Amino acid sequence: MNNRPLILITNDDSIHAPGLRKLIEIMRPIGDVAVIASEQIMSGMGHAVTTKSPLMPRLVKEEPGYKEYITNGTPADNVKLGKHALLERKPDLIVSGINHGSNAAINIIYSGTMAAALEGAIDGIPSIGFSLDDFSPKADFSHVDSFVDIITRKVLQEGLPEGVCLNVNIPKISDQPVKGIKTVRQAKARWVEEFEKRADPYGRTYYWMGGVFQNGDPRSDTDEKALSENYVAVVPVQVDFTALSMLDKIKF
Amino acid sequence: MNNRPLILITNDDSIHAPGLRKLIEIMRPIGDVAVIASEQIMSGMGHAVTTKSPLMPRLVKEEPGYKEYITNGTPADNVKLGKHALLERKPDLIVSGINHGSNAAINIIYSGTMAAALEGAIDGIPSIGFSLDDFSPKADFSHVDSFVDIITRKVLQEGLPEGVCLNVNIPKISDQPVKGIKTVRQAKARWVEEFEKRADPYGRTYYWMGGVFQNGDPRSDTDEKALSENYVAVVPVQVDFTALSMLDKIKF
Repeated sequence: MNNRPLILITNDDSIHAPGLRKLIEIMRPIGDVAVIASEQIMSGMGHAVTTKSPLMPRLVKEEPGYKEYITNGTPADNVKLGKHALLERKPDLIVSGINHGSNAAINIIYSGTMAAALEGAIDGIPSIGFSLDDFSPKADFSHVDSFVDIITRKVLQEGLPEGVCLNVNIPKISDQPVKGIKTVRQAKARWVEEFEKRADPYGRTYYWMGGVFQNGDPRSDTDEKALSENYVAVVPVQVDFTALSMLDKIKF
Repeated sequence: MNNRPLILITNDDSIHAPGLRKLIEIMRPIGDVAVIASEQIMSGMGHAVTTKSPLMPRLVKEEPGYKEYITNGTPADNVKLGKHALLERKPDLIVSGINHGSNAAINIIYSGTMAAALEGAIDGIPSIGFSLDDFSPKADFSHVDSFVDIITRKVLQEGLPEGVCLNVNIPKISDQPVKGIKTVRQAKARWVEEFEKRADPYGRTYYWMGGVFQNGDPRSDTDEKALSENYVAVVPVQVDFTALSMLDKIKF
């Protein structure tokens, strides 16, 4: 009998991303691993799911304690496929990432990486989204191992409440060592000046989404603040959107 | 000078949806209207945004106090286009829908309709997502007018805090009149048994996402409960995902 935990790994930067390979490398000593990741880049797909066309996962690698599937789905699709179609049993843990780029503050809402973790939380599976504060496809992940390992083992051991998962953001590598791990809240920040306007060869106007990220949140206990001080930022996040403080203020 | 409020309307069922036309009909007496909606159906797109390809909105209709744009974007894209590219001033209100199908409970997380409203809330624009508890493309919207009107005028008058919008779900038409409007919380419910497995003509396995919606939330103050009792369910929802109750429980 196999007592090793079953870990489902996905991401939104595609099956080819270095961040995914790093996460697989860290998880394999911890448990049996099933990777279910998209062929295409799914950054910015949020919690999109595929209902207009079918999903066709392909098993591309199999070793003892390891399976790797490539799919045409989104990160949320991939978790659903794992939970309900491909895995022989419910995974003990879902980890997503390591994303190339921060998913701190409002970025969580656009993030396929975090959608995968939230999708796990919906079914009460302990889930973690890991992101590195470096958008480069060639980002350096060499400093992340111990932090990812510590957080993963803690969640495996202690679990998480149903409907809650972790949004973990790791500072970009620098000449200063990361100072540690802080549990913090989502900063109130947003993107401004979001479009670049161009004309095509036929004179038609089109727009590229872009923008500048602005953090105007002065609080000391946010993910943005922790990252800026070279800490790993851990935000417990939930699938319940209710603004509880407003419940008794909106009267009909 | 024009003192009428500027209302941005979008949805996720495409510019051709009867639910969108109903919303436009209700909004035009209330303010100046700009419709920015997708050519394609965007149901289940969650908070996806388009960064891999450009957006090309087309102005397809213009009358005094009314503009209609068709786009190749997602609902979140359409709100961003409105806020930052197409509209001459910041809208006073964003309304999204009326969705063909409930966005109560966990459906909010997959919903393009609600992504549009949440995108408005990020920038502090009072925003409302309206949905009818009837998935049919031919859904009957004839009983919704007064409820949509009341909720809209209340939000225009009183505003909403930055980062908060409303998720409004309206019961399907029946032989009983809707009883009224209740402010409630998001029910804890989920989809189960989510895939139908098939083989293509070449023997390859593929999957259609499906499933059964299960509400196991016994609380009396949820959106599902209100809908089941024939009330319009209004849930104030927020863009802050932080699970506050867990902040002091996850220690490193």
